[in-house]
Amino acid sequence: MRLSELSEQSGVSTATIKYYLREGLLAPGQRVSATQAEYDESHVRRLRLVRALLQVGRLPVATAREVLSHADDESLGRTIRLGAALWSLPHGPDADPEATETAAATAEVDRLLDRLGWTTAREIGPLSPSHRSLVASLATLIRLGYPFRDDYLADHARLMHEAAARDLDMMETYPTQSEQVEMAVASAVLYEPVLTALRRLAQEEESARRYGL
Amino acid sequence: MRLSELSEQSGVSTATIKYYLREGLLAPGQRVSATQAEYDESHVRRLRLVRALLQVGRLPVATAREVLSHADDESLGRTIRLGAALWSLPHGPDADPEATETAAATAEVDRLLDRLGWTTAREIGPLSPSHRSLVASLATLIRLGYPFRDDYLADHARLMHEAAARDLDMMETYPTQSEQVEMAVASAVLYEPVLTALRRLAQEEESARRYGL
Repeated sequence: MRLSELSEQSGVSTATIKYYLREGLLAPGQRVSATQAEYDESHVRRLRLVRALLQVGRLPVATAREVLSHADDESLGRTIRLGAALWSLPHGPDADPEATETAAATAEVDRLLDRLGWTTAREIGPLSPSHRSLVASLATLIRLGYPFRDDYLADHARLMHEAAARDLDMMETYPTQSEQVEMAVASAVLYEPVLTALRRLAQEEESARRYGL
Repeated sequence: MRLSELSEQSGVSTATIKYYLREGLLAPGQRVSATQAEYDESHVRRLRLVRALLQVGRLPVATAREVLSHADDESLGRTIRLGAALWSLPHGPDADPEATETAAATAEVDRLLDRLGWTTAREIGPLSPSHRSLVASLATLIRLGYPFRDDYLADHARLMHEAAARDLDMMETYPTQSEQVEMAVASAVLYEPVLTALRRLAQEEESARRYGL
């Protein structure tokens, strides 16, 4: 399809599409003449993802470009490719490495991962920003003096593991690895707010069931 | 205890404690002389919560005051008191009421709640900011053209309901209703980052199990 059709199908203006092309967020179309290029379904999909990253995730253009370049890197193994794309998404601040509570939180996370048998997460450790975020958020709890129980954490981790398995099941319904990685990135940006809202709604529902209104 | 001891026990400077007192974030101590007041454990607990709201949740002082005033309102029923405190926490933007995808997302949420049998959530509807956040995040998915399956949503909702039940179990281990509400508020601010990190870590673990590194 031509640029004008791509714009129509994606709902993104031609000026914005040209901007994304210049910024390297969208691969150039197949050139068919000196002034025209041909685009396909992969461009429609990519525009959808770019909008999700910029408009919903509010990523800076440079960060979005980095996420997409990892997602597009076919030389990487599947887990690494997925990981690299997700790891370049914004994460919360890391824990202060000097603080005493960081050491306590790290020990806590190690113990949790051992208990859960999450061997890869244990092995990769703080290389993963998700691991570092977990340490940082537990360190905050410790610093403020809020308790957390090992059982509570392990129960929630198991529920999140079930949710993650369903996320991957959903991802696997897409035919190509590129589409799967794209869906995983979109899902990290777009579905996390859905889950947060569902959790709060579930708390309200459960509270009404236990205590009435 | 005196102000200086309260400062020592809570790790909050006396200047900051005085500021919180002036801003109505902390109840005044029991006056024992013209220049001295006596504080107790409830002040230590409250300071911890105020720090969680301001420093971690990054709430403006006025919003924190509103959250705390609901949490302290003993005239309210338990679910309403909890709800009012949690509802005054910041939520994502609401969906555009004029947009066609908002109507589609609302219908989707209604169908989901019926299917789950979450009768209170269905009844309260968009009065709850959690309900509105769910509609808004689904409306974004629809607007960008991302699919979501009813089964996927229902599965995740059930997992979040299990998580919510454990949250309330944890809350119920605290002896007074005031402490329970305080813990619920702290947990909304402090534990959501923990769960997000756990979910991402679980995705990495599950991906490595399925596809290797």
